[in-house]
Amino acid sequence: MSEGHIECFKHVRKGNSCMAIQQEALELHRQWKGKIEVVSRVSIKDKKDLSLAYTPGVAQPCLAIQKDVNLSYEYTRRWNLVAVVTDGSAVLGLGDIGPEAGMPVMEGKCVLFKLFADVDAFPICIRSKDVDEIVNTIKLISGSFGGINLEDISAPRCFEIERRLKTECDIPVFHDDQHGTAVVTLAALINALKIVGKDMKDISVVVNGAGAAGIAVTRLLMAVGLKNVILCDRMGAIYEGREGLNAEKAEMAKHTNPERKRGSLKDVIAGADVFIGLSAAGMLTKEMVKSMARDPIVFAMANPVPEIMPDEAKEAGARVVGTGRSDFANQINNVLAFPGIFRGALDVRARDINDEMKIAAAYAIASLVSDDELNEEYIIPAPFDKRVGQTVAQAVAQAARQSGVARI
Amino acid sequence: MSEGHIECFKHVRKGNSCMAIQQEALELHRQWKGKIEVVSRVSIKDKKDLSLAYTPGVAQPCLAIQKDVNLSYEYTRRWNLVAVVTDGSAVLGLGDIGPEAGMPVMEGKCVLFKLFADVDAFPICIRSKDVDEIVNTIKLISGSFGGINLEDISAPRCFEIERRLKTECDIPVFHDDQHGTAVVTLAALINALKIVGKDMKDISVVVNGAGAAGIAVTRLLMAVGLKNVILCDRMGAIYEGREGLNAEKAEMAKHTNPERKRGSLKDVIAGADVFIGLSAAGMLTKEMVKSMARDPIVFAMANPVPEIMPDEAKEAGARVVGTGRSDFANQINNVLAFPGIFRGALDVRARDINDEMKIAAAYAIASLVSDDELNEEYIIPAPFDKRVGQTVAQAVAQAARQSGVARI
Repeated sequence: MSEGHIECFKHVRKGNSCMAIQQEALELHRQWKGKIEVVSRVSIKDKKDLSLAYTPGVAQPCLAIQKDVNLSYEYTRRWNLVAVVTDGSAVLGLGDIGPEAGMPVMEGKCVLFKLFADVDAFPICIRSKDVDEIVNTIKLISGSFGGINLEDISAPRCFEIERRLKTECDIPVFHDDQHGTAVVTLAALINALKIVGKDMKDISVVVNGAGAAGIAVTRLLMAVGLKNVILCDRMGAIYEGREGLNAEKAEMAKHTNPERKRGSLKDVIAGADVFIGLSAAGMLTKEMVKSMARDPIVFAMANPVPEIMPDEAKEAGARVVGTGRSDFANQINNVLAFPGIFRGALDVRARDINDEMKIAAAYAIASLVSDDELNEEYIIPAPFDKRVGQTVAQAVAQAARQSGVARI
Repeated sequence: MSEGHIECFKHVRKGNSCMAIQQEALELHRQWKGKIEVVSRVSIKDKKDLSLAYTPGVAQPCLAIQKDVNLSYEYTRRWNLVAVVTDGSAVLGLGDIGPEAGMPVMEGKCVLFKLFADVDAFPICIRSKDVDEIVNTIKLISGSFGGINLEDISAPRCFEIERRLKTECDIPVFHDDQHGTAVVTLAALINALKIVGKDMKDISVVVNGAGAAGIAVTRLLMAVGLKNVILCDRMGAIYEGREGLNAEKAEMAKHTNPERKRGSLKDVIAGADVFIGLSAAGMLTKEMVKSMARDPIVFAMANPVPEIMPDEAKEAGARVVGTGRSDFANQINNVLAFPGIFRGALDVRARDINDEMKIAAAYAIASLVSDDELNEEYIIPAPFDKRVGQTVAQAVAQAARQSGVARI
């Protein structure tokens, strides 16, 4: 994304005649008439074909599934089908634009699922923001799918929705805004630490932004063994006992910030090894970077404008810098994770996507940058690196088996 | 379907090693790995493509839809998407086999939608038999689709589910087991009456079977102007005041059977011009056919074994005989109706599929048998007649416009 595109992005809401890419995107969406299509996998040319794919022959797989519901993974498309579900409440950086308005993104996501991992994904928008209704709707249709990818549902509802669905559904449920981001961030961190010669267990990390992604990143870092993580929201560091925390932040406060540091981001970033931003443009200053420990790692992932621009971060001494943008080095992009994670989960018919699988995905992504190639400007594979999907899938499938959630 | 297939069909439930077609169907379903697939309509080869189909370009169609939700029909696949929804409670002749077990039929239906009318159809099974839950689930996901095809939901719940959805959804809702059957039956009747030289408004009809299809057929016949229709269930003729009628049958009793005839099918079929069976094998005897008015029309549509076999009906004097089977003349097959009906409804973005559209579809189907071709053995086009889908679609679209439910 060039500067021009950023300007463009800012103007979108105003409906100005804007940058070429935005106009082109709108025009292309009109021409495409939808980015996905449901096609037939069988050829039906005559009565005989019809009697095999439809009545009376179709009665046989129906009866087989009636006897053993697991056979729905063998006689229907369920084994390869993921629902991409949104309520339209937190779409891109656009906010609560409504269920139907979220669908171009959902269709785009489905395209990426197919492109990068041959997963059939189908977009569903739900016309409700009520947690119970959303959970119940997804549960009731879950027999049609092999997995559920939650998308662009606002915090803190997204946490409860996912938590309940993970308990109540017998298929894997994955909120990509949380866990896709967490997996790719961890992958980038694994390789960045190699460059600065620090060990995961010794480092201190400040995560700025306590929304869905920030909380999920923090959780995954804890799951992988980090002790010293401080999560910040707009009010500064989150610590146990701070007033006005919602349930999710209060829970995070119990397990993070072991020294119970208080104060603003500026106060707590001093001496930290890693900054991870999932917040907003310009939140990190050069002064803050200068106050960090030696060889700072800065992942400034706010979109489209990062918490600090990479050149500024570098000037202030950051050793490794990553963003969410494709026009800078080290793009930390979910597309490296979700297609392969679902591919792996579907391949072993996993009943869950657990921490073991997410961590395995992160190490798999990191492993694709060889020690020879690894440098400050290349810590993570590019989105179009064809090895990623399959490498992640294999690692995730293996982790699913080892952690006991694989069903085949 | 040969006699052998019928035997085969009977044995399916017992799981015997069965006829070739059943074994072949099962094996093919395993090989197909699903009869539908969700594919991408866009080519994404590099960052530029990604930025148009996904972020940041995708923000533009999102914002456009946020401003005007009708644009979801232009920027997403919604304009061509129909959900094929079941609860698995009345699948084929197999009964309540459960949501997942109904999916091979739903996928088959989706294949037919694509094949005969280029409609993208996606199968959804709902894990509930509760009317409120089913209605609410479909309503909540209806923003993802351009239409809803209800399928294989048992009576009488199917009536309330459809009625409520038609009121509460802003997209067309169509229960094919009811209305698809009704449309094709009416089409067959239109042409059969030409052969026997009788007029629609003068005839008396007995409909045997008061389930979803029987009631829908009766309703459509009344809508097209028939006065003298008697609906029978297992207890015989339905008349106003008969004890033990459910709400749906009680409602039908008010508008049918104007002479309030009582008694068994045998009692009320005497003197009737038309028999329409949507009941069970063997319900109509040769004696009953002999008791009908001159040139009886017999549509014996029970599957796989009709109410009377065509040769027996003919021996007893039936002039025109139709069944649901492809191995006899005059197959009265829903596939002639539902693809074109949805094609037409989608093409004009109809908010409903009303009686006018169904009747137009029936006349369109009937019109494809020219006066030159019309004879006792050919009153209705074959399922693979390529003209059907488009002809029905055009008639339905026109009727939608004329009846004020078209939105474009």
